[in-house]
Amino acid sequence: MSEIFDETRALFDLPEGIIYLDGNSLGPLPRATAGRVASCVTEEWGKLLITGWNRAGWMEMPRRIGDRIGRLIGAEPGTVVMGDTLSIKVYQALASALELRPGRRVILSDTGNFPSDLYMADGLVRTLGDGYALRTVAPEDVEAAITPDLAVLMVTEVDYRTGRRHDMARLIEKAHGAGALVVWDLAHSAGALPVDLAGAGADFAVGCTYKYLNSGPGGPAFIYVAPRHADKVRPALSGWLGHQAPFAFDLDYRPGDGIERMRVGTPPILQLAALEASLDIWDRIDMHDVRARSVELCEAFIAGVEATCPTLTLGSPRNPDERGSQVSFRHPEGYAIMQALIARGVIGDFRAPDTLRFGFTPLYTTLADVEGAVMALSGIMATDGWDRPEFKARAKVT
Amino acid sequence: MSEIFDETRALFDLPEGIIYLDGNSLGPLPRATAGRVASCVTEEWGKLLITGWNRAGWMEMPRRIGDRIGRLIGAEPGTVVMGDTLSIKVYQALASALELRPGRRVILSDTGNFPSDLYMADGLVRTLGDGYALRTVAPEDVEAAITPDLAVLMVTEVDYRTGRRHDMARLIEKAHGAGALVVWDLAHSAGALPVDLAGAGADFAVGCTYKYLNSGPGGPAFIYVAPRHADKVRPALSGWLGHQAPFAFDLDYRPGDGIERMRVGTPPILQLAALEASLDIWDRIDMHDVRARSVELCEAFIAGVEATCPTLTLGSPRNPDERGSQVSFRHPEGYAIMQALIARGVIGDFRAPDTLRFGFTPLYTTLADVEGAVMALSGIMATDGWDRPEFKARAKVT
Repeated sequence: MSEIFDETRALFDLPEGIIYLDGNSLGPLPRATAGRVASCVTEEWGKLLITGWNRAGWMEMPRRIGDRIGRLIGAEPGTVVMGDTLSIKVYQALASALELRPGRRVILSDTGNFPSDLYMADGLVRTLGDGYALRTVAPEDVEAAITPDLAVLMVTEVDYRTGRRHDMARLIEKAHGAGALVVWDLAHSAGALPVDLAGAGADFAVGCTYKYLNSGPGGPAFIYVAPRHADKVRPALSGWLGHQAPFAFDLDYRPGDGIERMRVGTPPILQLAALEASLDIWDRIDMHDVRARSVELCEAFIAGVEATCPTLTLGSPRNPDERGSQVSFRHPEGYAIMQALIARGVIGDFRAPDTLRFGFTPLYTTLADVEGAVMALSGIMATDGWDRPEFKARAKVT
Repeated sequence: MSEIFDETRALFDLPEGIIYLDGNSLGPLPRATAGRVASCVTEEWGKLLITGWNRAGWMEMPRRIGDRIGRLIGAEPGTVVMGDTLSIKVYQALASALELRPGRRVILSDTGNFPSDLYMADGLVRTLGDGYALRTVAPEDVEAAITPDLAVLMVTEVDYRTGRRHDMARLIEKAHGAGALVVWDLAHSAGALPVDLAGAGADFAVGCTYKYLNSGPGGPAFIYVAPRHADKVRPALSGWLGHQAPFAFDLDYRPGDGIERMRVGTPPILQLAALEASLDIWDRIDMHDVRARSVELCEAFIAGVEATCPTLTLGSPRNPDERGSQVSFRHPEGYAIMQALIARGVIGDFRAPDTLRFGFTPLYTTLADVEGAVMALSGIMATDGWDRPEFKARAKVT
């Protein structure tokens, strides 16, 4: 297994002297991407001009790429399509799910969900009016809050702050038992851990590609709709490329077949080309290998930090089965610690009020990176006096 | 004036032997774009990684670029922001406009509007329910159809098929007189002709950048909101980057100031970089020069075709004041004629049932191009027998 990842690491263009533990926020540049994007610009757009839509296959990219991502998340062929941003895809999925549950008006989510998902749900329920509502509970209370009045449960599988992971199969079973549908946000799952949408009986899923899937800043999102639902909804965001015959230019909207109707406007071809280059790496990857290595990296990091940094408190679940591919530690001076760490070339990020967040991405993160990060962190803690016992006491009451 | 356009033409990378009259569908590649995109990929994303959001100014690109486009459409500084696709921006503008007219429920549009705008409006009124409705009339009947029950008039300034141009100032005055707001789609206006949004008292406007503005396939859209409205609406598509403090990760949505709230999700940085390279050309352009040259090119094309192709019927208004920067001709065998023309290296496009469409884009289209296109077209018409009088008769009854 480790040979695979020695090979994949060589496929990324990582700056010298950097340990990059923020691939859960923006993945690094694959070496092949610059060439693929340049070719899309000069050979396709430059030479084919408008005919690129057919001759370079641009029009089919959202479906073609959707299938490649589908393999990584356990989706059936033809059920995933690319486009827009994750926030827009959340709106689309939620609106569609609500339409499939007429008479029910409650969306349930949790306070660990990424805020944009909650904001988009808020915008949708305001637009729908008429008693529609968003209800939020703590992440650990989601299962108990699945009640028979629920229309849709909307959760992010892996919590962006803590790395806490929801049990997908269990929540789907519970929600379906209550007559509700589920919308999964896979922002911190796709490329991070094995996902089995079809096997778990998922209804809708959405996700982004610029984190673990390395599509670059602002890469397009994806949406999954289970085949049993795909032909039943009339999309709220009913754009021309989701029409049955976009180039007939009919005045009336007729939704395209299945997942096609989740397309909206003209797809971002340069960003899709960048994503294609990255997927050339992902196509050879088994997500179970990624998972095994991810757990190994995370466990090594937790053990190293806990052995050397007594005032840092683990903010992620200790059991790997309950975690995604990231680890958080908490400290009242977390912001300053992360700044010092970044200055030393170890790139993680900080989330208010006190969370240091580290992403572990087996395609290019090594055990040597983990050791280097632990050494840098423990060095900073000692040098700057952040390992004084008073910080531990403050962390405990946070 | 012609010296300006000699200079700008040299800034585009046009394939040898091609006369490109489809820049109203997809603009060609500026020479500087490949370098700018490559630098964004390798120097910014590759080297700065996550810090590119601040250090490369990515996070500010939607506003910074919005202002540059704003100059071309007569928008006040700070009133235009980039992102998403035109269809999404239509939905956002419409939803916001409707919210500013509580108690009114009718959107008026015309059958010459680009179908996706009608589809998005349809999706929105279905989502709103509760008596909201989309009403469409023929383009020439719009003014008369502005009635006191209207909430919003939604029109594309220049008809994508015929090039027919609505009178912006007049329709705004009429709509405001009836208590309605107006949403303008500038897809065929931005970069095509002078637009004076502020001067005309516009409320909302949206548009795309991959046509006249040469941002490349799938380049991002823009949205304009008049300063008097911008702080009053709570967006339907309430994404995190439109939040007052996106990185506070609040659970509740609080709209950002003014146009900021029209941002939704993570912006497409590679496509924005491509757009920036093109705007380096546009920054030096006076839209009145573009307009004068555009009229000259269109008039020469119409005169040339009418002098040599008796069975082609002008499908655009004859008066330049009533046209955008494109010319359509109709013929019952239009599809075959366009295919033959493209095979001869003259690239226009075809819109069912019988429209040959030609875009004139002064930044890189010359009078020699117009002459070459007329010669190719008249040659095809004669050689292939499409200039037989029977076609003229059929065209007339279409």
